[in-house]
Amino acid sequence: MAGALLRLHGNALSRSAALRPSPSLPHRPMMVTMSQNQSYWASVNAEIDAHLKQAIDPLRPPREVFEPMHHLAFAAPQNKAPALCVAACELVGGHRDQATAAASALHLMCAASFTHEQLPLTDRPRPRPRTSSRPTAHHAYGPNIELLVPDSMTPFGFELLAKSDDPAQNNSGRILRVTVEIARAMGPQGIVDGQYQELERPQSDHTRWIKRVCKKKEGGFHACAAACGAILGGGSEEEIEMLRRFGLYVGMIQGMLHGVGRKEKGLAKMVEELRTLALKELEEFKGGKAEAIASFLC
Amino acid sequence: MAGALLRLHGNALSRSAALRPSPSLPHRPMMVTMSQNQSYWASVNAEIDAHLKQAIDPLRPPREVFEPMHHLAFAAPQNKAPALCVAACELVGGHRDQATAAASALHLMCAASFTHEQLPLTDRPRPRPRTSSRPTAHHAYGPNIELLVPDSMTPFGFELLAKSDDPAQNNSGRILRVTVEIARAMGPQGIVDGQYQELERPQSDHTRWIKRVCKKKEGGFHACAAACGAILGGGSEEEIEMLRRFGLYVGMIQGMLHGVGRKEKGLAKMVEELRTLALKELEEFKGGKAEAIASFLC
Repeated sequence: MAGALLRLHGNALSRSAALRPSPSLPHRPMMVTMSQNQSYWASVNAEIDAHLKQAIDPLRPPREVFEPMHHLAFAAPQNKAPALCVAACELVGGHRDQATAAASALHLMCAASFTHEQLPLTDRPRPRPRTSSRPTAHHAYGPNIELLVPDSMTPFGFELLAKSDDPAQNNSGRILRVTVEIARAMGPQGIVDGQYQELERPQSDHTRWIKRVCKKKEGGFHACAAACGAILGGGSEEEIEMLRRFGLYVGMIQGMLHGVGRKEKGLAKMVEELRTLALKELEEFKGGKAEAIASFLC
Repeated sequence: MAGALLRLHGNALSRSAALRPSPSLPHRPMMVTMSQNQSYWASVNAEIDAHLKQAIDPLRPPREVFEPMHHLAFAAPQNKAPALCVAACELVGGHRDQATAAASALHLMCAASFTHEQLPLTDRPRPRPRTSSRPTAHHAYGPNIELLVPDSMTPFGFELLAKSDDPAQNNSGRILRVTVEIARAMGPQGIVDGQYQELERPQSDHTRWIKRVCKKKEGGFHACAAACGAILGGGSEEEIEMLRRFGLYVGMIQGMLHGVGRKEKGLAKMVEELRTLALKELEEFKGGKAEAIASFLC
């Protein structure tokens, strides 16, 4: 509801946690103006989209590659991690521009990963039908194209990131650190490990399996995004790690609500606990930007 | 033949070119000791292999990812580009260690690209049978694994490269420049564009099509490898561009002999012309390292 004030702690904390306030909790609940936050997220996403649209102009040669890349990048379901990267950068005092390239790279790699997950392989069941909670790709191109084009999206993302190196800002060290962060999140110990674990659904103890998959997949990716934003914005090591943990919890919640956990009942308590943990990581941060980033949890 | 002296110009130049020596050509043909060169290339490749084996130890967790990654990285046919990267670094006066991570990254990405080219997709013909001139992959794993694991090999390659940043060497700028070079070579305007063009075999004028594909695919990849080596070794801009062109010609020859041009008759003259052009790029370089890199053309 536009203009409504949302008491985040009242909404997000589990009841038992709310009854046991930590001495380090702020004296009053964080007050968030929803319309302000909506316009904040809209402006962040618009900036990432504009950066991507310029980089992957479908008319750019070779059109045979850029046209499907443009389609696949924008057809993939929106992921919160790129916006979280920009918000974390601003939260630690950086400027939005410092994180837009990294956010765009994260979006491209996420879209590439989504496209490959939907590829019709000979040893895979047909893609699941579209549901409201978990979108599947509309296959506008043949499998060969949907295999090859994402293969170029990951290096293209790294190119965008590396090109954002600005000698005037003396930020080469930060860019290289973020390159390692993103490469790890997308690499063998990151999202691919999560995809493997997702395939190995156990007969029992689904909750534990869901938690593990969400931690590796969405959790790791969002943790990386938030840490990258904080690094690029010049955050302290403490701030980087707080935001990494915040991203981890945000991502795990995403995975539980919209990913592998979407059909599992009985996760509400775990989601609430994760919200509490996430908000705790924001306690050291003050002002409107902290309230905006907290609204990720709504 | 071990110990034999090979007169590269006599072997490589086309007859007509040999009859019209350029004033800038060296006064005597470049003398190359084959056994020395063989041991040079063997030692370069051994060093890259050792770096890769340590990085992708199949026992490293998660084993479900590192084990197939190790297999796919070493099952892919050997590509000359990684060794060319190291040789170019040494040629401009750099130390081999400065280029080993980039060479390993190039090998990983090349192996990932090869594996995806062999994936059985629903809109693809079955993989071609193995021939002596163009190997196909033995599918030790299912398509799902051969899709997902290469997706992690490209970011892992970028991670190896970015981690080779050494503040003591103050080489962040070079590493970022090489990141952009490799990302471009693997991206939408690089190897993927070549893969597209390979699919669009025309009804006639096959020679022109082969030249275009070889230039985009193997040519662009080897050009990138040589330029990256020169950048990392601290070469001048002129040296970087000479070695980039050398790599381009070397790669195009590879494509004509072992890639898309392998079955086409009548490419011998073009291959000889490319050899001539390649050797011309080495004229400014002196000593045993120049002779070693020239032996790429044997």
